[in-house]
Amino acid sequence: MTETLAERRARLMGPNVPTFYDDPVHIVRGEGVWLWDNHGRRYLDCYNNVPHVGHCHPKVVEAVCRQSARLNTHTRYHHTLILDYIERLTATMGHGLSQMILTCTGSEANDVALRMAQAVTGKRGIIATDNTYHGNTLATSQLSTRRPPIGGYPGHVRLVPAPSSTDPLGGSAEAQPQAFADGIARAIAELEAEGSGFSGMMLCPAFANEGLPALASGFFDPAAEVIRRAGGVILCDEVQPGFGRLGSHFWGHDRMGFAPDVVTLGKPMGNGYPLAGVAARPDVMAAFRGAFGYFNTFGGNPVACAAGMAVLDVIEEEGLMANAAAAGAHALDRLEEISHPLIAEARGTGLFFGLELVLPDGAPATRFAAAVAEQMRHRGVLLNRIGREMNILKMRPPMPFTAEHADIAANVLGEVLAELPHDG
Amino acid sequence: MTETLAERRARLMGPNVPTFYDDPVHIVRGEGVWLWDNHGRRYLDCYNNVPHVGHCHPKVVEAVCRQSARLNTHTRYHHTLILDYIERLTATMGHGLSQMILTCTGSEANDVALRMAQAVTGKRGIIATDNTYHGNTLATSQLSTRRPPIGGYPGHVRLVPAPSSTDPLGGSAEAQPQAFADGIARAIAELEAEGSGFSGMMLCPAFANEGLPALASGFFDPAAEVIRRAGGVILCDEVQPGFGRLGSHFWGHDRMGFAPDVVTLGKPMGNGYPLAGVAARPDVMAAFRGAFGYFNTFGGNPVACAAGMAVLDVIEEEGLMANAAAAGAHALDRLEEISHPLIAEARGTGLFFGLELVLPDGAPATRFAAAVAEQMRHRGVLLNRIGREMNILKMRPPMPFTAEHADIAANVLGEVLAELPHDG
Repeated sequence: MTETLAERRARLMGPNVPTFYDDPVHIVRGEGVWLWDNHGRRYLDCYNNVPHVGHCHPKVVEAVCRQSARLNTHTRYHHTLILDYIERLTATMGHGLSQMILTCTGSEANDVALRMAQAVTGKRGIIATDNTYHGNTLATSQLSTRRPPIGGYPGHVRLVPAPSSTDPLGGSAEAQPQAFADGIARAIAELEAEGSGFSGMMLCPAFANEGLPALASGFFDPAAEVIRRAGGVILCDEVQPGFGRLGSHFWGHDRMGFAPDVVTLGKPMGNGYPLAGVAARPDVMAAFRGAFGYFNTFGGNPVACAAGMAVLDVIEEEGLMANAAAAGAHALDRLEEISHPLIAEARGTGLFFGLELVLPDGAPATRFAAAVAEQMRHRGVLLNRIGREMNILKMRPPMPFTAEHADIAANVLGEVLAELPHDG
Repeated sequence: MTETLAERRARLMGPNVPTFYDDPVHIVRGEGVWLWDNHGRRYLDCYNNVPHVGHCHPKVVEAVCRQSARLNTHTRYHHTLILDYIERLTATMGHGLSQMILTCTGSEANDVALRMAQAVTGKRGIIATDNTYHGNTLATSQLSTRRPPIGGYPGHVRLVPAPSSTDPLGGSAEAQPQAFADGIARAIAELEAEGSGFSGMMLCPAFANEGLPALASGFFDPAAEVIRRAGGVILCDEVQPGFGRLGSHFWGHDRMGFAPDVVTLGKPMGNGYPLAGVAARPDVMAAFRGAFGYFNTFGGNPVACAAGMAVLDVIEEEGLMANAAAAGAHALDRLEEISHPLIAEARGTGLFFGLELVLPDGAPATRFAAAVAEQMRHRGVLLNRIGREMNILKMRPPMPFTAEHADIAANVLGEVLAELPHDG
């Protein structure tokens, strides 16, 4: 008789709205790395990177409240917060990335970045990997492989084979950088032949959606050379690896050691306040601003900038990048200690981990990975899955995640893995 | 020696970043219909619709603060606020519009709406008017006329002649509805011939960017019939007219008397918190959800929903729609009383006004309108311009705008018009 939450949701939001878990968690409160459901049950959040400095961090909440009560308007008037914020944020970047456009979502940022590549080159052809996600706008969703767009994939998009830890392109870790670059070179030739020409490549420098493969610094060098030689622009999507998550570097591209022309930012930037952005060199920005009229009503509003500034404060004051390195190393040790026949590889950098599960016959352990994520949720630890076959457990917790939290997660994971039948 | 704010802005944000006024106002505080600059000078805000229930309304600020401190996560978990909000908001709509997707910006909402039309029809061709704006994503910006996209306008977009108060299509107000529909019929035929087919039309039911022409209820009927007959979907962009601004109806399409398949919402929805959305009938939503995987990280987060709910509370508690009708009628009277040789028409509905300025030879008084907006700003009243030739003064104040505020604005406008030389 009574409508369930899932039924009510379907009635009001429609079918196929994505949720986590067969029995989605009904969350009502968050604090630090913890979430509480409607029954008062506590969950360790090993998944969410939006609450970068911790759920409901008081310093960010205070900044949002204070500025919301004072002024919240847009960038057609002058205000100094956006300038202070851009100045501070771009100071963390090298490679001449000194100017920004602020948007509300990473999707909007990537949608702008695609047009920056168009503006610089006068071409439309764009390359991404064949197992990625760069956003939900019509234009950025064409880079995703999950569902073909109405009318089929457009001719100006080419998706190249993504790198892998356990099944490297070219057959070995050594051969993989050049094999990846060769795939890009082929795609460029196709775009030139097709008539779109080549504007650039968009990539996540951690290849997070691709499964977070363990790749050495310098991996991207041959690819970057191919892109440069063809006159293309490198669009670096830092939505997942950025803001110190990788522990060793504030930005993923610096960890991998390459110089992007454009960097896009999103999820963690405002700790939940809708704030995202695009950083670019002045020459790239001028090309974009010359070719497109762009204004984003909510983008870079004073409240968003106050939130973003508070996030940077907390990262510094609480030493969260150093914590990501230390707690992350401990967590990876603990993951590597777990012995289980289906574990193909535990890998991670800072507070970003993948645990790849493979069946004895070498096939991806997709169903088993799903069962693990479900069982973890029932034991109070939230994580999820990535990879082409969704057989890689993904952990990407809020940054105040400590060694003690890692121990809790690893202990529960060890129990779940030991207890679950692993028939695939 | 010292860098000016404009110079600092250009250094950090790049060239051609849109601003209002030759000497942009540096705003530091807002309250109700008032804004204060960095010198403590007060401005009457006759322009901004984002702070729909007033700048920094305490009830909205309190809702944002309370929810920010408690939980701010996403819709892959259950939470009830988004359901409560969608239920309450769709209850204000008819036409079977009972389901929603929440996004962060109106641009994202329109970008989704374009794909809804594609999903329903399996076609891509889309029609808008030739003097409009529906957003800043790559896809929605193709409906704007300001700058040609890189590679030219795509074949699947057709822009039809927009209606006008003072220069009606077909030569008269009576002939205009059919003439508008005829333009749409021609565009549909072109899309069919070009191969894209026809997916639908996107329009603002107040034709706000087109210059807010005075149009009778029923104006859109012949056009709607043409669109329906061709199997197209009507995408109604309520970003400007919605949420009671027009005084007589909560939604612009109800004022004009037509039934859209999709309604998009934006700016006023969260009173500055980035909140927007798409409402659709269940059949349209199902088509979209079947064709596209869509998830928006920040869209419909608990804080956004708390802000949206507080906005609806305030609209009701403070009777803001009735105020829009009453204060708007008074304001229009005051505008109509202003006598000036260049005023071609003062028009308005609720709290949304246009004052069209035309030279004695019939040419648009673009420079004069610009001078008026600048002079108003210097006398403490913020308004702006719209229209193909930017010769129409646009006033669209926060909803707590009263008859007293209207008197202030009309008095200053009368003075400025009387004093400015009007050589064009």
